[in-house]
Parts: sequence; structure tokens; C-alpha cells
Amino acid sequence: MPLPRIDLTANADLRARLQHKIDHKTKPQGALGQLESLALQLGLIQQREAIALSEPQMVVFAADHGIAAEGVSAFPQAVTVQMVGNMLAGGAAINVFARQHGFALQVVDAGVAADLPAHPQLQPRKIAHGTQNICEQTAMTAEQAQAALDAGMAVLRDLPGNVVAFGEMGIANTSAAALLMARLTGSSIADATGRGTGLDDQQLQHKRAVLARALARHPDATAPLDALAALGGFEIAMMTGAMLQAASERRVVLVDGFIAGAAALVAQALAPAARDYMVFCHCSNEQGHRLLLAHMGAQPLLDLGLRLGEGTGALLAWPLLQSAARFLDEMASFESAAVSGKEAP
Amino acid sequence: MPLPRIDLTANADLRARLQHKIDHKTKPQGALGQLESLALQLGLIQQREAIALSEPQMVVFAADHGIAAEGVSAFPQAVTVQMVGNMLAGGAAINVFARQHGFALQVVDAGVAADLPAHPQLQPRKIAHGTQNICEQTAMTAEQAQAALDAGMAVLRDLPGNVVAFGEMGIANTSAAALLMARLTGSSIADATGRGTGLDDQQLQHKRAVLARALARHPDATAPLDALAALGGFEIAMMTGAMLQAASERRVVLVDGFIAGAAALVAQALAPAARDYMVFCHCSNEQGHRLLLAHMGAQPLLDLGLRLGEGTGALLAWPLLQSAARFLDEMASFESAAVSGKEAP
Repeated sequence: MPLPRIDLTANADLRARLQHKIDHKTKPQGALGQLESLALQLGLIQQREAIALSEPQMVVFAADHGIAAEGVSAFPQAVTVQMVGNMLAGGAAINVFARQHGFALQVVDAGVAADLPAHPQLQPRKIAHGTQNICEQTAMTAEQAQAALDAGMAVLRDLPGNVVAFGEMGIANTSAAALLMARLTGSSIADATGRGTGLDDQQLQHKRAVLARALARHPDATAPLDALAALGGFEIAMMTGAMLQAASERRVVLVDGFIAGAAALVAQALAPAARDYMVFCHCSNEQGHRLLLAHMGAQPLLDLGLRLGEGTGALLAWPLLQSAARFLDEMASFESAAVSGKEAP
Repeated sequence: MPLPRIDLTANADLRARLQHKIDHKTKPQGALGQLESLALQLGLIQQREAIALSEPQMVVFAADHGIAAEGVSAFPQAVTVQMVGNMLAGGAAINVFARQHGFALQVVDAGVAADLPAHPQLQPRKIAHGTQNICEQTAMTAEQAQAALDAGMAVLRDLPGNVVAFGEMGIANTSAAALLMARLTGSSIADATGRGTGLDDQQLQHKRAVLARALARHPDATAPLDALAALGGFEIAMMTGAMLQAASERRVVLVDGFIAGAAALVAQALAPAARDYMVFCHCSNEQGHRLLLAHMGAQPLLDLGLRLGEGTGALLAWPLLQSAARFLDEMASFESAAVSGKEAP
């Protein structure tokens, strides 16, 4: 299956009209800071001057990682399936914030290393029971990578609404994200690798040594799809496909933390126009995320020291998108409110 | 009238119980970052393990400033009364965000330089038609400062709910805030003074020269109340009184930007325990605010380059308080969800 066609949001005329509308609200120009650039982006995504955000969806992609066998995570691999169960029971952080903000929540089994019982909120899209150990072979075959991308696109096509938040669950997936970042941006393993769910200094040193070995094992996997297959994970690959599909449908793409950021990086490498549709919701406390955001030219909305994943940072930022839409729609202009403008210097 | 009695939120037993509850949620310890410290603070304010935020109030204190005559603002003084009108008509940014988040909005005329027609959302508490020009004499008399504090306390006592957000409107009030900051923290005028609503380089230089002159005019106003009277504004003084009263009633105090921050600084100087009740909602783009927050040991929730005032930053941060309350209440624990904990290193 080919990649979906994604149009750039560029539209000089609409951009000028949106900027004029923003600048003439009853506030000093630029005084709403990032909310103003966000309103502009949302307007360009939707190709209209009045933003309408509808039926927001939260999709959590879950998978396991062969590299967990190398002792790169503070938590045992069984936590992936346990946390999927927790999400389906409504007890995880992502459930709390999805209820708070009215997001429909879907969990996608992209490749959990266990058979999961059916559940109305669980989409069974398992490619395999976890990836292979990247230190020994490619995480997945090229066919599996393509199947994961395709499945992600299919997941997305079935969703209502025009906003999708992307999150993940997968023990050891900061390792896969760090490897993708290192390969696709040229960052060092030291810069890209962090403590994940809570490694101590010695464990972090071990993780870095493992990842350096894993990266060296796949010197030829430099093209985006090859890197994804060699170094990625099923949840990352499926998220990449879903992000590309979302952008092709002009949906707003809410990017959560480091792992969702790695999927966004791959999506951008495959289709640069996809970047236009991405709202980077927060900068996580995971080492490497700040650098990844800088590499993508992204200014995140929140910086709260989060390092939980699941999509939590995306949902915490959501009210800011609503605020951006609302100020553009509801605020008076200097003219309509008869408020004096700035004095000439 | 004496200052209200404010208790420290310190409670070692409750703190330990809250921290235990936070740490046993299904997430790595600390993974919700600032949301965790926020939940702890809210629990300590309310002296309970289940946070209940009710009937949130937004209060905007408006006043004019004699120092506006020195050309320290990019907008004419008439904008204060025009923007109060805009707020009462529902067209300002603060109205938009108050509607979005279900805050009741009150505007308090603390000292606008015009007579305002009655309005159900307007509290007439005018101390005078604007302050005096600080470059020539004290902004207000000691009696006026006390009257403003008292009025602020009275405003607060009449409000329902247990959360109050504080905002302001007043052309030239970044000048009063910068002077208070310089005097009470020892910061230089250069560090404390910013572009306000949008001064250019030359105008900023002029503003700094004016403020240096103003500060030098009142060398003896070093005690908090003296500094407030000499260098402050009616909206700042009234906000200070209201913050003190709110803390004395164990309400959550949502502090907006630089001007509300200056009121918080005075409140803390008058009654250090008041600091415990303050949630610093954002770091504004106004020069000096970051330094003011650092001086108060505050880690703001948002950093979006806002510089609008009104209380907008406080309302934009509000959903994060709700998220903090909700994760504490609704998230499963490792035990209840049968999720494995961190492995021993």
C-alpha cells in the first residue's frame, strides 16, 4: 500500500486573513503567545477562519520489545499487558484525562507479547508477539513494518472526528525511540537515551551500552522505513501510519511524548508535509525529547516534567487547543468593542 | 483592620499520606511531574486526601496609574476603562476563558480614572480616580493603601467556592509591579522592567529611566506596606488584600502574571504563610516575571509567552488543577490494578 497523499497546509491568503483576525482581537499583538500560533496552525489545518474541533479521539498503541531482554527498563515486560488491562478497566492516567476532556479512548494491540481477551475498546491489530531483540536482528521484517503502517492507517480511517491524540504503552519502548532518533537525526546515543520509567545511574549506563551495540548492529538501516523496521517497535510503526493517515485527512495530530515523538519523526521523514498537522503537546522529562523537539522545530505547549507516556501529555494540553479556537471565535475586535489601539511611538 | 490569620499548610502526617497515595498510582514514581507536586499542594491546602475544587471564581481588579502620564505604556490610559467595558460586555480574552472553564467573573473597580456605570458583574470599590504619579509623590496615602487591602478582603469574603483566580487591568501597571519587585526583592530596574503591552527599544529605555527616577523618589518606602503605598496601584493593593483573605480561608489562590505576581509578592511579605496557598499559573513574556517567580521559589505551570494579563494565564492553567485532583482520586493503584512494580536494580 502506498503512503497516503498529504497536502501542505500552506495557503498565503488564508494565513493573512487568520493573522489579521488574530491581530485585531482586543489585546496587544502577540499577547496570547503560543496560543496565537496555535490558532493560526489549526486554522490552516482546517482551511477555515473559524476552527471547529470535533469528536476528539485518543488512540493508545501497545506493543512489546525484544530488547527488553537486555535489561533496559526498570519495569518487567509483563507490565505492558498489565497496563493494557488497567487502561481497559479505566484505571490508568490516560483514562482519567480522557474522561476529563471527553476523548473517546481506543487501545490498539500492535504487538503485545501476550494474547489479549476481546474488549470493546481494544483493537486487535497484533503484528507479532513483540519485536525481535534489536541487538541480535532487525526488530521486525520489512513486511511487518509495512503491515504495521497499513494497520495504523486502517485504525485511523475508522475513527470519527477531526482531532486524534497519539499515545503508547510498551516496556522498553524508550529504547526503540532513542535508536530511531539517533539514526534519523544523527544524535548520539548518549544524548538520545534517558532513564525511561526510572533507571538509576548504573542502569542508564548499561542501557546506553546496549543501545550503542544495537545501533552498530544495523549500520545500513538509514532510510526511514529501513530504520523503522530495524530499530523501531510495532506501536511506533503503527502510530507512524496512523499519523500519516490523520494528516492526509486534515485531522489535527496531537503528539504526546518521546515515543510518539519518534513516530512523528519517522512520519515526517516519510512525508514532510505531515509535520504541518502535528501539535507537539509537551516536552517530557525523558532525556532526548527536548532535543528531538528542537530537531523537528517544535515548540511544545507544556513542560511539566511528565515522563509517563500513554498519551497523557497530549490530553493535558488539549484545553489549550480549545482556548485557541475559542479566542479566535469569541473575542471582540478593537473595532467591535470600541477599544483604542496602540499609540504611535 | 488587622491582617487575617493565615495558617501554614504544613501537616507532616497528611503530607506522608498524600505522597503515599500519589506514589502508589499505576505509573512510575514522579512520572506525572508537576502534576504530582500540585496534587500534594492542593491536598495540603484543603487538608484532605481527596481534593474537591468547587465554584471557581475569577476576579479582575482594575485601576489606573498616575505614572501613565510619563509615557510608560504603549496604550493610552483610556484603554483601562474601555477594556473594563469590554469585559463587562463579555468580549475580552478573560471572558472567553472564564466561559470555557466555568469561572464566575467579577470585575472590581479598584481605582479606574473614570466613573463606571453600574453592572451586575462590576463591584464598585474605587479608592480614587487612579493613583498619583509615583515620580512626584507616593502613589497613594497609607490610609488609601489600608482601605484598598480592606476592600480586597471584603471582596473575597463575599465569594463562594474554594478557588479564586486573580487578574488585573490597568494601563501602566507593569510599571508599578516592576517598582514593587525592585524594592522588595532588590532586583535592578533593568531586570524588573519590561515592554508591557509592547514598547519598542527606545520606549523601553525611557520607561526604565522613568522607573529609576520613581524608585529614587521614595528611598524610605522599604517596609511592605510602605512600598505598596509609595510604588503600587489600587488594583495591586486590593488584590493583595484579597489574596491574604483567600489564604486565610484555605482557598486555592491562582496567581496570573507579572502584576498578580507583584501582589503575591507583597502578600507574602506581609504574611509568609500566604505563599502556601498560591499556585503560580504561568510565566509571562514580561521581563522580570521569570525572576520574580524564581525569587518566590515558584515553578509556574505554563510558559506560553503570554503577556496579556487580565487573569488569562490563570484560567488557561486551570484544567491542570482539575487533572491533579482527578488523578489523585480516580487512578488505580498498583495493588488494585494488579500491575507489577519496579524491579529491584
